[in-house]
This record gives sequence, C-alpha cells and structure tokens, in this order.
Amino acid sequence: MGVDERRQQLIGVALELFSRRSPDEVSIDEIASAAGISRPLVYHYFPGKISLYEAALQRASDDLASRFVEPPEGPLGARLLRVMRRFFDFVDDHGPGFAALMRGGPAVGSSTTNALVDGVRQAAYLQMLSHLKIEDPPARLELVIRSWISLVESTALIWLDGRRIPRAELEVQLVHDFAALAAVSAAYDQEMAEVLRQGLKDEPGEGPFSDLVVRLVALASPPAV
Amino acid sequence: MGVDERRQQLIGVALELFSRRSPDEVSIDEIASAAGISRPLVYHYFPGKISLYEAALQRASDDLASRFVEPPEGPLGARLLRVMRRFFDFVDDHGPGFAALMRGGPAVGSSTTNALVDGVRQAAYLQMLSHLKIEDPPARLELVIRSWISLVESTALIWLDGRRIPRAELEVQLVHDFAALAAVSAAYDQEMAEVLRQGLKDEPGEGPFSDLVVRLVALASPPAV
Repeated sequence: MGVDERRQQLIGVALELFSRRSPDEVSIDEIASAAGISRPLVYHYFPGKISLYEAALQRASDDLASRFVEPPEGPLGARLLRVMRRFFDFVDDHGPGFAALMRGGPAVGSSTTNALVDGVRQAAYLQMLSHLKIEDPPARLELVIRSWISLVESTALIWLDGRRIPRAELEVQLVHDFAALAAVSAAYDQEMAEVLRQGLKDEPGEGPFSDLVVRLVALASPPAV
Repeated sequence: MGVDERRQQLIGVALELFSRRSPDEVSIDEIASAAGISRPLVYHYFPGKISLYEAALQRASDDLASRFVEPPEGPLGARLLRVMRRFFDFVDDHGPGFAALMRGGPAVGSSTTNALVDGVRQAAYLQMLSHLKIEDPPARLELVIRSWISLVESTALIWLDGRRIPRAELEVQLVHDFAALAAVSAAYDQEMAEVLRQGLKDEPGEGPFSDLVVRLVALASPPAV
C-alpha cells in the first residue's frame, strides 16, 4: 500500500473503533491489531493517538456535514425530514463516539476537535439558509436555526442514552420543532413571519406541517365534557 | 483572615476575573494582585489555577442552579419567565466565562468542570419537573425538558455573541419555546397531551401563553388579499 492509501485505511479502522466505544477506551495496540499492522507502523503514519483521532473526526465531520445537503427542491418539511433521517443514521452508526465527543472530556476535548464540531454546525447552518433560500439572514432567523441545531444535537444525545423513544418519531419531531421555534419567533416579529410564510408556502396539504397544525388545533380545543 | 475566609475571598476575586474574560487569559499573578496578596500566598490556598478555577466554577454552579428554584405557586408561564430573567442576569454577569466554559477548551474542559455543568443541568431538570408537579416523568417529557434546557444554553450563547436581540425578548421567547416543544410532543402523544393540559390549566387569559396562541392563530390565518 502507498502512504496515503495506508493512512486512509488506518483512519477508517480508527473511526470504526472510535465510533463503537468512547475514544478514551481505544488503544493504539487495538487499532494496529484491527488494521493488521504493527504498533510501530501505526506511529510511522500518525505521531500518536490524538492525531489519529483528529483525522478520524475530520472524516466523520465531513460525512456528517454532507448529510445536511439536499437538493433545494420540493416542500421544506419533506427535505428536512430526509436530512434528519440521514443525521440519525450517522448518530446510530457512531453512537458512543458521538456521545463522548459531544460531552467533551480528556481524549476528545481540544481546540482542534472543538473547531471540527463548530465546522459541522456552521455547515448545517449554511445548508438550512440555503433550504430557506435566504442569503442575508436577520438575527432572529440566525438564532432560530442555530439554536435548533443545538436542539437536534441534544435530542440525539438523549436518544442515545437508552433509546427509549423510536428514532423515526424523533426525526419527525425535530422537523416540527423547527417549524414551532420559527413560529414562536414569527409570532412577535414581522420579518420572521415573512420568512415562515415563504418557507412553508410549498407545503402540501397532507405534509408533516399541515398534520401538525391540525393536531395542535385539536389539542388547543377544549375537550368535550 | 482565617483560612476558610481567605479561601472564600480568593474564590470571589477569581470568579469575578474568570467571568469577565476567558479563563485562559487570567493569570495567578492577576488574581493575587486583585486579592491584594502575594502569588505564593495564593498557592498556599490553592495548588494551581485549575483548582482555583474549579472552586470558582463550583460557586457559580451553585448560584446558577439556585436560579431555577421558584415557589411552586401561580401560573407556570409567569414562573418560568422569572426563572429565565434570573438566568439571563447570570449570563449577563458572567458572559465571557460562561461562553468559554460552554464552548469547552484547554483551561475549562475537564471531567470536573463537565461534572459541574452536568450538575447544573440536572438541578434545572429537577426544578422543571417540580414546577410541573411530576415525579415520575415519561421519556417524552424528560426529552422535552432536557432538550429545552440545551436550547436555553445555546440561545444564551448566541445572545452573548453580539447581543443583537434584546434579552427581554429572548426571556419571553424561551418560555414560549418550552410550551411549543411540549405542544409538538403532545400533538402525537396522549400522555404528553395530559401533561401539557395540567401544566397550562392555571394560565390566566392574559398570560404569555394565551398571547402566544392568539398570535399563532393569526399567523396561521391566510392574509386578506
């Protein structure tokens, strides 16, 4: 194998191990053994576990950021639902490593890893703007999108802790949460009301947002006693 | 001064400095100078900057957790609004230190600091359950409360970055966001619908939740063209 090929193979092996268990618990010996090479040879390609972890995280970050990309066609709700499904696929595949990274800690919290996590958040933010077809977002829209992204992260972390709620339910819920947070902001701000109206104008009558509105109206109606 | 008194004074001085600038930028020399004592005397009370930082963070965590405590009387919306005001007072007072802590990093990310942050989140979670008068929460309610707490944190962090939206607006918005996230969950779950109904049953006709509902209904109505 050439140098770059070997490095890429090692990154793949390491990412697999760092995903399945907390990175603190994965040793260079294990990575070497899983890759079928000697420990000194691992050090030939990567100066230490941290640099290998950062390379694996770089690959995972690129993968995760790409999951927010979606052709800008069709109703917003259906697009966001596809994004959420791909996001939960990722979380499902990388559970323990994702949880360890997001909770921080000795092996995973460094300025490099923080920058990678922030890079994914920023990519997700820009994709959301592109879904909404907005280039110069008002401060309130930026807040709604960025805080929703953190809601997505924390929902995934809580889901991973016991998986007590079916993930398909949470994927739909997070799409609804986005609309709900935007609507709360729009209820008090004219500019946000216009963003919301534009964003939802292509929603079909039987789409996820319409279903939510029907159910919320039923919920708000006093029960027949 | 006695040993404990001197330690408490040093913690107070350090907390003040760690709040106003990123903890990375605060030196022991500065803390000694602000406390009016020599550098070796600081080391007599605390073995190093990290232990002093952790002691300051412990005090700040106790303070922050206490701000979620509120007599369990009166409408929920008004109670949560008072909690949000006290929370933003805290964020306002400790801005740079709060931001550095929540973003992680070399001086602030350790298992001790993570445990303190988690302790505050847990205290806030338990207070929310007590406001809702629920002892044994279903998984969906736990998710709504915990993910809302992360929304509160991220909203505060985004606010600190430029303060482009008045904080009073965000305090109300976060109370509304809690109701909105609970309503989205309740729209698809009978048990959550009951929690929501019980939680909102004491809301006055002119409270924040009623105002929100009126505005959302207006927003959902097609504009007169």
